[in-house]
This record gives sequence, structure tokens and C-alpha cells, in this order.
Amino acid sequence: MIRCNNDYSRGAHPAILKALEEINETSFGGYGTDEICETARKDIAKYLDCPNAEIHFVVGGTQANVLMIEAALTRKYHGVICANSGHINVHESGSIENTGHKLLALPAVDGKLSAEQIADEAEAFRSSPLQEHICEPKAVYISFPTEYGTIYSKKELREIRAVCDEYKLHLIIDGARMSYGLASERNDLTLADICDMADIFYIGGTKCGLLFGEAVVITNDEIKVGFRNYMKLYGALLAKGWLLGLQFHVMFADGLYFDIAKDAVEYAEIIKYECLKKGLAPYVVSDTNQLFYVMSKEMIAKLEEDFFFEVMDPVDNKYNIIRFCTSWSTTREEAEALADAISML
Amino acid sequence: MIRCNNDYSRGAHPAILKALEEINETSFGGYGTDEICETARKDIAKYLDCPNAEIHFVVGGTQANVLMIEAALTRKYHGVICANSGHINVHESGSIENTGHKLLALPAVDGKLSAEQIADEAEAFRSSPLQEHICEPKAVYISFPTEYGTIYSKKELREIRAVCDEYKLHLIIDGARMSYGLASERNDLTLADICDMADIFYIGGTKCGLLFGEAVVITNDEIKVGFRNYMKLYGALLAKGWLLGLQFHVMFADGLYFDIAKDAVEYAEIIKYECLKKGLAPYVVSDTNQLFYVMSKEMIAKLEEDFFFEVMDPVDNKYNIIRFCTSWSTTREEAEALADAISML
Amino acid sequence: MIRCNNDYSRGAHPAILKALEEINETSFGGYGTDEICETARKDIAKYLDCPNAEIHFVVGGTQANVLMIEAALTRKYHGVICANSGHINVHESGSIENTGHKLLALPAVDGKLSAEQIADEAEAFRSSPLQEHICEPKAVYISFPTEYGTIYSKKELREIRAVCDEYKLHLIIDGARMSYGLASERNDLTLADICDMADIFYIGGTKCGLLFGEAVVITNDEIKVGFRNYMKLYGALLAKGWLLGLQFHVMFADGLYFDIAKDAVEYAEIIKYECLKKGLAPYVVSDTNQLFYVMSKEMIAKLEEDFFFEVMDPVDNKYNIIRFCTSWSTTREEAEALADAISML
Amino acid sequence: MIRCNNDYSRGAHPAILKALEEINETSFGGYGTDEICETARKDIAKYLDCPNAEIHFVVGGTQANVLMIEAALTRKYHGVICANSGHINVHESGSIENTGHKLLALPAVDGKLSAEQIADEAEAFRSSPLQEHICEPKAVYISFPTEYGTIYSKKELREIRAVCDEYKLHLIIDGARMSYGLASERNDLTLADICDMADIFYIGGTKCGLLFGEAVVITNDEIKVGFRNYMKLYGALLAKGWLLGLQFHVMFADGLYFDIAKDAVEYAEIIKYECLKKGLAPYVVSDTNQLFYVMSKEMIAKLEEDFFFEVMDPVDNKYNIIRFCTSWSTTREEAEALADAISML
Repeated sequence: MIRCNNDYSRGAHPAILKALEEINETSFGGYGTDEICETARKDIAKYLDCPNAEIHFVVGGTQANVLMIEAALTRKYHGVICANSGHINVHESGSIENTGHKLLALPAVDGKLSAEQIADEAEAFRSSPLQEHICEPKAVYISFPTEYGTIYSKKELREIRAVCDEYKLHLIIDGARMSYGLASERNDLTLADICDMADIFYIGGTKCGLLFGEAVVITNDEIKVGFRNYMKLYGALLAKGWLLGLQFHVMFADGLYFDIAKDAVEYAEIIKYECLKKGLAPYVVSDTNQLFYVMSKEMIAKLEEDFFFEVMDPVDNKYNIIRFCTSWSTTREEAEALADAISML
Repeated sequence: MIRCNNDYSRGAHPAILKALEEINETSFGGYGTDEICETARKDIAKYLDCPNAEIHFVVGGTQANVLMIEAALTRKYHGVICANSGHINVHESGSIENTGHKLLALPAVDGKLSAEQIADEAEAFRSSPLQEHICEPKAVYISFPTEYGTIYSKKELREIRAVCDEYKLHLIIDGARMSYGLASERNDLTLADICDMADIFYIGGTKCGLLFGEAVVITNDEIKVGFRNYMKLYGALLAKGWLLGLQFHVMFADGLYFDIAKDAVEYAEIIKYECLKKGLAPYVVSDTNQLFYVMSKEMIAKLEEDFFFEVMDPVDNKYNIIRFCTSWSTTREEAEALADAISML
Repeated sequence: MIRCNNDYSRGAHPAILKALEEINETSFGGYGTDEICETARKDIAKYLDCPNAEIHFVVGGTQANVLMIEAALTRKYHGVICANSGHINVHESGSIENTGHKLLALPAVDGKLSAEQIADEAEAFRSSPLQEHICEPKAVYISFPTEYGTIYSKKELREIRAVCDEYKLHLIIDGARMSYGLASERNDLTLADICDMADIFYIGGTKCGLLFGEAVVITNDEIKVGFRNYMKLYGALLAKGWLLGLQFHVMFADGLYFDIAKDAVEYAEIIKYECLKKGLAPYVVSDTNQLFYVMSKEMIAKLEEDFFFEVMDPVDNKYNIIRFCTSWSTTREEAEALADAISML
Repeated sequence: MIRCNNDYSRGAHPAILKALEEINETSFGGYGTDEICETARKDIAKYLDCPNAEIHFVVGGTQANVLMIEAALTRKYHGVICANSGHINVHESGSIENTGHKLLALPAVDGKLSAEQIADEAEAFRSSPLQEHICEPKAVYISFPTEYGTIYSKKELREIRAVCDEYKLHLIIDGARMSYGLASERNDLTLADICDMADIFYIGGTKCGLLFGEAVVITNDEIKVGFRNYMKLYGALLAKGWLLGLQFHVMFADGLYFDIAKDAVEYAEIIKYECLKKGLAPYVVSDTNQLFYVMSKEMIAKLEEDFFFEVMDPVDNKYNIIRFCTSWSTTREEAEALADAISML
């Protein structure tokens, strides 16, 4: 069986295990105050072009999202605008509401929000005579890439940033699959661009070649206040913090983070091309390593003989949405095997 | 100026002030443990036909909603299905999310949810392979009447109840304007029917002739556990509890609660009839004391010379949605004055 | 039976009911935006000597405490220093923790905290190398008078204020029984002094002659932000807000608030004098309308034939702590009856 | 410099890194549903003697504590009895209060609570006429070993269990340093005993030889409900769950977990013996790998030339409390070096 169901089904890039072994006998200070974390912060900072950015390492994506939103929303009547398909709205079991904040979920198109939608929501609050009775939008949460593998263009992101400036909203970017977004052929954004436009965002590790770990980057001074205290409060201050720092060091010292995602995205294109030839209907036209198609139950059953992939919501009695997902650990052989299987459906 | 903007702009029915005066010199035990509250509970119980029902008095509607949902949802990953137009979703500043629970808001038609919508949402959770990643629907919150003055029929409520039974969801009913709903010509429900179908609901007082106060009725034994503790925790255990009990006693001892709403609904019909004659477009066809129309800005300006009424969202540059609202304190003269003014627009 | 068990067992001062009746037919804008509330704010402001103070009316004391602390503590890792005997620590069922904040409870002497205790706690945090692992003290909560009827002197309050300034702590004062504290023979503070020293405090109404209601006063600009939003979020924005404004207007227009408490405190002294003659051991030497004695079970049983009073914790098999409480509604005859009964024990 | 400051300053036991490498190329299902986690659960279960126990793996101790308490306390007015020196009370930044629950902190002796203290607290609630106004004790949280390295005897734990049965309290045990407790010469408890007496507890990994990870064991069926949902809600459902399972498998397949702690405790005894000879005053007489002494500032300065150790609260101007801590990674040479240095102070 070949796994094409997600990008977190294998351990880590070999360079990470090797580095772990090399420092296993060395002792360090706890909770991310060590010298390896410091080095890793510098490694990442090279790509940010923002001397003022503050970097923290946490274990997982739900933690990162909870912390980013908690830090950006200082009052409990603050809500966060998000796509109705956003991870925080559909796949975190209510973790944001558990912090007391309301999600102001807007209907997304292909997983994306438009600047106009955001402006309308913010304007509705600004012009309301009932501001004390409704939840105040204080931040916007988007994902790069989105849940559906699509990406925002530089132009789109600039427009969203302008709306955030106009309405004093913090821009929060969930970069769980950041490397795949940056590696997309259709991408025109750099990490520095994202850092320039977001108030707080995270660079995903778990789905991008690390054993685990995400790097939260804060550019807005207000949001920096007490971030480590929040990390402790939410159980996200890892005792052996250097385990996180080391992994990010391996990935960012020489750009490995960017290289391995390029392969994943290329392999996704191989599969995509075969789907196109086969005439399969894309559910969303993805830009990255996740592919969404509408497929008949027969085809699904056939493919499931040799491949793991995600069978999502039914479209009707005969068809389902499915997701293929390549990753940093996918090999060209695996991608070609899936492409072949599709061609023979 | 005549106020037709809401049903909470005057004090209380005179009988209530009279009763307050009569007992002002008497002393009582605190926090709702007094004999007047006990009497009031019996007065209400006559209409419930449910010996097992437990009754608590709280000060306001947001308090009642927070308490009902908190008591019905014992785990933080529990969410509550509601209409996207529901009071808890749009007019309570995020008070439910502040308790940690997610609102699963569905698109309402005329302020109402259908049994089918609820079943679809519950089924989506039941059949999901990702139950641990998504919020579990545990209750349904509806309003009788709704935010738009519409009411559920006995048949509709039975269907919703059946879905709740099928998916083990608690049914929560917000009755802030209960008396107006029961008084509607189109209503076929009694308080006993509502009590029979809801797990927990409240009978509104603030908007129905009391100075303030709502009576929460719990029929489900599980939900009764610790309700008074929750009242204390949320600052809803009024020290001089008899003030609440007394008001409900005055209203329910001889059915005054039902009588005064009938007048309000009749007066709304007078206004409605004139709007119909004038050819005004109803935004929603209301069944109770709230009326929603689409009106030109010129008409609005004209009416605003003599009347307070609520100007809501704009439809376009020329038209706005507006709300007229009669109440237990509206007089026939006031309603006729508004009707006249409309006829002369 | 004569009630000497608390100060919230009777309705309201007759002047309040009279005023309610006079305006019952008049209509007002909702949620505290009316002209009566505005007048009441001015009536109170006369005693505050602080043009910058902002005043809000809420229904009860637990609500007031939750709101004051929520508004003063903007980050969830902020805690509040309080007496271990403080109302928020022992009698609110965990309402503050329910907002997510930790109480840093210090051992009180006669219900009071000393400036030194507060400084020690704040210094322990300031000098800790583990600040991210411990809760940050951000505010001090004290009561005037305390749970044990004692009061802070001007000197003591100034010392506490100085510590708050030194450690950037907000000073929060719970004035549920404010009028009795101000009326004490041993008091040297005015409402203006308290307003000068607190960042936020409330002037109690429920226990001081109103049907219900507390007036929150905010002097610190930071804490004012969004207070009404928090009121809505916590179900404390009363629809008919003028009911609160009116009661405070009656009490503060001509100083009635201060007058009626003087009687209550004088009557407490009558009872106190008799206890002294009888040789009863005071549990705490109170300055106000609450008296705490250690009394044998036989004496308690005897007194309970004619009087309600609070029997608190047992001291041993034979003795209990008891509380007598006079109020604005206690008559000289009632106090003398209790004094007589004590003399005959 | 030799680190004797804590037990989480080095990576992991070499066997763990080796195992990680062996499975790095293999792919697994996500979120702890994989076969390695299943194996690890069986490995641990061998020591529990409780077929009904349910085992979950989480990343860190604060997460484990939050989850255990959240799962055991189903109502927000539930509080948890703990030692005032307990980790949740002093070193988690208010994480439990952030879930809404009050800590009922009792004065500990040497880090321990007695059954009698717990019974008194529970009885105070049971016999209170004010139950709705105070927080309901619903669980007891203790640590094995405690923050001060002391352990409960089987007799003491049985007495606590009996009190929990009497008052229907859940018993929660924080076993962050479980292995060192079990390895103590003075210990008479087995993991099966602990499992038999606790409703929920965790077996610490981070401080006991793993890179990271704790194993939560639930024996009470009520507490099992929705535990994985809570894990997701609190960001504790690790995507690559097998990383946790694998580490526990390595530790429990052949008892490695118990062996490595024995050395650590033996080395602590070497240091302890030297302190005794030197006449140093123990702050607490520890039973495990943490040692607490009162030491002069001169001695501290001298030792700090070659060793890291924790300098805690000052006793007075001249003396401080200090902590030495051995661990699974401490070598005999390191312990002897410290012992030598102490002997030469």
C-alpha cells in the first residue's frame, strides 16, 4: 500500500534524525532558552527580512492557532474573521471558542476569503448602532496555502492587508503547509512578503519534513506581549525546547525546507496531469500538494486496493470528493505509481 | 413621540408595581428560596402539565441563554445548533463562545430552522470519521417566536423533537417573547406543548410586562444538576429573589401574562393591515408583535417625525429594512396613530 | 421573628418604590442609554470629585466583581491578589476562575490585607526567574468594608495604593456594603478618597437600600475600554437600564444613601454594646453593620426562638461563630429587641 | 560545567533514538491510531493489572494535567483539591484556572497532602448550607513523587482513596517523575497499586528518559468519555502519534523505564550522603532524585563554578534554598564529582 492520504504519515527528513543523534549527549537549558533555538531563530530570520520579528517554537498546528489568536485578541468580545472552510472552524473541535472567542466565519471560495468580504464584515460592525451587542472583529485568519491547497497571490494578500489597516484588524496566517505554498509554480510570494504583511503567522514543520514543530513569527509589537506566558498557559512550552530549535535549524540553515517541498509539488503535478487526461472533475483546482477530485465509488474502490487516500464528503449516491496528498517524503516512484493507476481506471 | 421600537421601553404592568409595594415591608430569605418564589413556581406549573419540571428565575435573557446552554452542554467540545439569525449568534456579543462552546449556525428561513437542516448537521457529525476533530452537536437552540416574529407550528416542533430524539440532542427554546407567540392567531401550541417538547426553555418576562425577569423551565433531569450553582457562577442568583417570584406570580396567578400579549398582537395586526393596504413589502411575514418591512428612506424620515421605530440594515441606497414593535404597554390609540401615519405616507 | 441575618431581606427604601411608580408610564431608550441613568451618573459624580470617572450600573455584586476583574486583567495569565476571606474567593462559586483568571489568595487578618503582604507577593513575581511559569499578579482586590465588617483607614489604603503604583497593579474595591463603611464611626475615608485611590470600584446598592443594583466606577482609562461590551457579554446589560439609574438617583440626589446607613451602624452599636456587657467574645471586632461573635449552642438556640441570624462555622462542639447584621431597613425597635434578648441570655 | 539542575536537560535514552531511526521510513496512520501506539499501550498495560484501563499519549506535563482535570471535572463549578505547593498551583501560569476551574489549595507538608486535610475540605462543603455559593470539590490532585521529591506510602494513598470514596472525589495523580518515585528505596507502591487507586493519572516520560511524552491512564469509565476530543480541543493530539507510542514501547517493553531511574536515585543518595556528612540542613528530606538544601551564598557561589543547580527562594540574607537534581542521564562520575565538591565546601 502506498500512502497518498496526507503529509504527516512518515517520521522526518533523515537530516533531522542525524542532527538529533549528534546532540543527544549534550545538555541544554530548558523551555526554548537554549543556544540551538537561538541559532534556529537566526536561520529563519535570514528569510524574513524583518529585524523586529520574534520567533517562538511550538509543537503542533492547533497549539499555534490557539496561541496566535489568543495573543492577537486581548478582549473576550473580540472575534476573528475566517473562512468557513478554515481549519480553526472545521477541524479543531472548537478549540478557538474554547478560549472564549467567536469565529466570524465567511463563505470561502476555493478555501479563500476576498478582501471585499472582509471589508464588508468589518464595515458592518463599524457602522452598527449595536456595537455593544455584537462581537467585534479584531483579526482576520487565513491559511497559506488554504485547506483546499489554493494560494493567495501577492496582489490578493496586499488587498487583504489594506483592509486590515483600514479597519485595524490583525492579520493572522496559518502556514501549516507553508513550504508547499511557497513551492507552487503559481506562487509569487516569498516568506519575507508574508512576514511583511502578517501581524503574526506560523511556518509549518509537522507537515513539511519535521518530526513535529511549528515556528510562530510575530511582527506586531502589541502581540508579542506575554507570548511565552501564553505558551506555558496552553501547555505549549516544550521542556526540551532545543528539539524544536534543532529541527528548524536543519531545515533553514541551507534552505532544505524549500527544496523538499518543490519535489512534493512537482509530484502532485504528475498526478494532476493524469487526472486531467482521464477527465476527472477537480473539486477545487489546487496549487500545491493537495489535490481534490470528484470520483465515482467504483474508481475509489479500485484505487483503494493499492493506495491510501482520503475519501471525503459524498457528492451524491455515486460520487465522492477525494483528496490525494503528496509530501516531502513522497517519492517520484510513488507518484508515478498513483498516476499509472489513475490512467488505468 | 410614540415608541414602537421595542417591547422593553416601559416599566411594568401596574399590577406588578402594586404587588411590590404591598410586600415591601416584609422580609424574606435570600436567593430565591422564599415562599413567593415557591408560589410563583406553582402558578406557572399549572400551565405546564409536567409535575417533573423545575423552575428558576433569572434577571435577563442573555443570562437565561448562557445558563440553559451551559447546563445542557456538559463537555467543552459540545456545540449547539442554532439559526444564523438567532439571538445568541448575532446579538449577545459572543456570550456563548465566552463559555467555551461553539455555535453551529445554520442558514435560517424567516428566522426558523427546519427539522431536516438539523438532521443533516447531526448526521454529518454522526457519520464523520473525524469526530475527534470536529465539534459535537449536543443541543439545538430555537426561539419561539423567532427574532423575526415568526412561530413554529406544533407539527414543525414535533419534527424537530423527533430529530433531537434520534440524535440525542437537547432541545433548548428561547422564549423571550413567549407570550406574543402564544397569543398569535396562527399559533397552535400551548405552554404545555412547549414544555413537553423542550428539554429546557425560558418564559420571557422582561419583554412581556415585567420590570425584568425570565423563568427557566427544565424538564430533563440531567440538565437540572447544579443549575443553581451555575446561576451563582454566572452572577444570576439575585439576592432578593422574591422580586422575580412576585412578578411571575402576578402574571401567572390568573393568566394576566396571556391576556396582555393578545392586545399587543391585535394592535400589530392593525398596523400590518395598513401596511398591506399601502402596498409595503414585508421583509418577513411575522406572526406576532414584531413587524418587518422594506421602506424607502423618504417614508422612514417622514414617520420618524412622530414615531420611534427600528431602522435596520439597508437594502440598497434607497430602501431600508425597518421594524415596528408593539408591546403589552402599547395602547390601541398608539397603534391607530401609527396606522394612520402609514396610510398617509 | 425578627430578621437580623442579613442586609438584603427586605425590598427597598420607600422613596425608591415611589419613584418607580411615578415613571412607570414613561418610555425610555434601552440598555442604560436613557436620561435617568445620565442624571444618576451626575448625582453620584458629585461625591467623587473626579471628572474623568465613568459610571456603569449593573444588577448584582457577583456580576460587578466579574466585570471589574475581567476589565482590569486583559491577559489570561494575569491573576488578582485578594484576601483568602474575600467574597470572590469564598462565596462566588468560582466565578472569577470561570473567567480564566487565578486568584492569588493571601491570608487575611480580620478580613484585611496589608500593603506589605501585597508588596511581598508582587515582589516574589518581579524577582522570579520563572515568570513565564507562574501567574502574573496584575490587580489587587479588596473590600470596603470587608467580609468581616472591618474597614481600611485612609493611611492603610494609601499604603496599598503606593504598592500598586510601585508594582503597576490595578486596585479594585468591592463596595457591596460601601454605605455602612462610610457611616462607621471609625471611618476617615470619603467616597472621593476611594475614587481617588481605586482604578475601578463599585458602590453597592442591593445591600444598601435599593431593590437591586450596583454602580461600577472606573477611573483608569485603560480599564474603561469596552466595559459595556463586557457587560453585554456577561449578561449584565439590563434591558430597562433606567430601573437601575432611577434607584441610584433617589439615593444620591440628596444623600439618602449615606443617611440610612448611619442608622444601621448606630443600631449595630446598640447590639454590640449589649454583647460587650454580656461578655461575649467577638470573633472579629467589626466597624460596621455586621457583628461576629462566638456563642454557645445553648445561647444560639435560645436566640433563634425570636430572631433570624446567621450561624456560621463551629468553633468546637459547644461554640459557634454567629453573625448579626443590621441594615437600612432595621428599626431601632428591632435592634433594641435583639439587645434585650442578648442581655437576658 | 556539569548539569544537576533538572531532569530534562538532555535528549533521550539512546535506545529511543535508535528506534526512531528504524521506523523513520515507515508510514503510519495519524493521531495515535497507529499500531505502534497500540503495542505501547499493551506494553504499559502489563504493569497495570487493570484490563479496563485506557491509555493516551500526550506531549507534555502541563497538557496532561489540564486534560486530566478537564476530563474529571464536568461542571464549571467543580474545583480540585491540591497541595499549595503542587505544580498546577505554582508552576503552570494559571493553566487550570484558564479552563475555568478553581484550585482548592491546601497547605502541604513536604509537598504532601494528608487524607485528613482532604476530608476536612470535602466535609466543609458537604455540611455547608451555602453549597450554591461555594466551589464544589470534585477531585483531588496529588503528585507522585511530589514537587519536593517526597513520596506517598501505600498506607497514605489508601487513606486518601478512602476519603475520595467517601466524598465521591476523583483521585488524579501527576506522575511527571513517576519512575523516580517507584525507584525510591522507601517506596512500597507499584504501578499497579497506583492504577488501582487513581481514577486517572499519568506516567511521566519527558523527565524519565524520553525526548518528550506522557502516558495518561484512565481507569474510571466516566472520565474516559470524550478524552480524545479534549486532546484535540487542547492541541494535544499529536499528528505523528507514533512518535509517542514508540518511545513508551522502548521504555516499557522490557522494563527500561524502571531500570534507568534506579541509577538516578542511587546517585542522588551519593550526593545526599555527602551533604549529611557536611552537616547541610535539608529543606525537605527527599525520597527520590531531587534534593533540597539550605545553603549559604558563599557555598552556592563556590559550587556554581562547576555545576548548574537550581537556586530557589532565599531563606534570609545569607542563605538560600537550592535544588540538586539527578536524572536518567546523570552518570556516576557526575554524581561523584558533585559529592566531592560538596565535601570540599
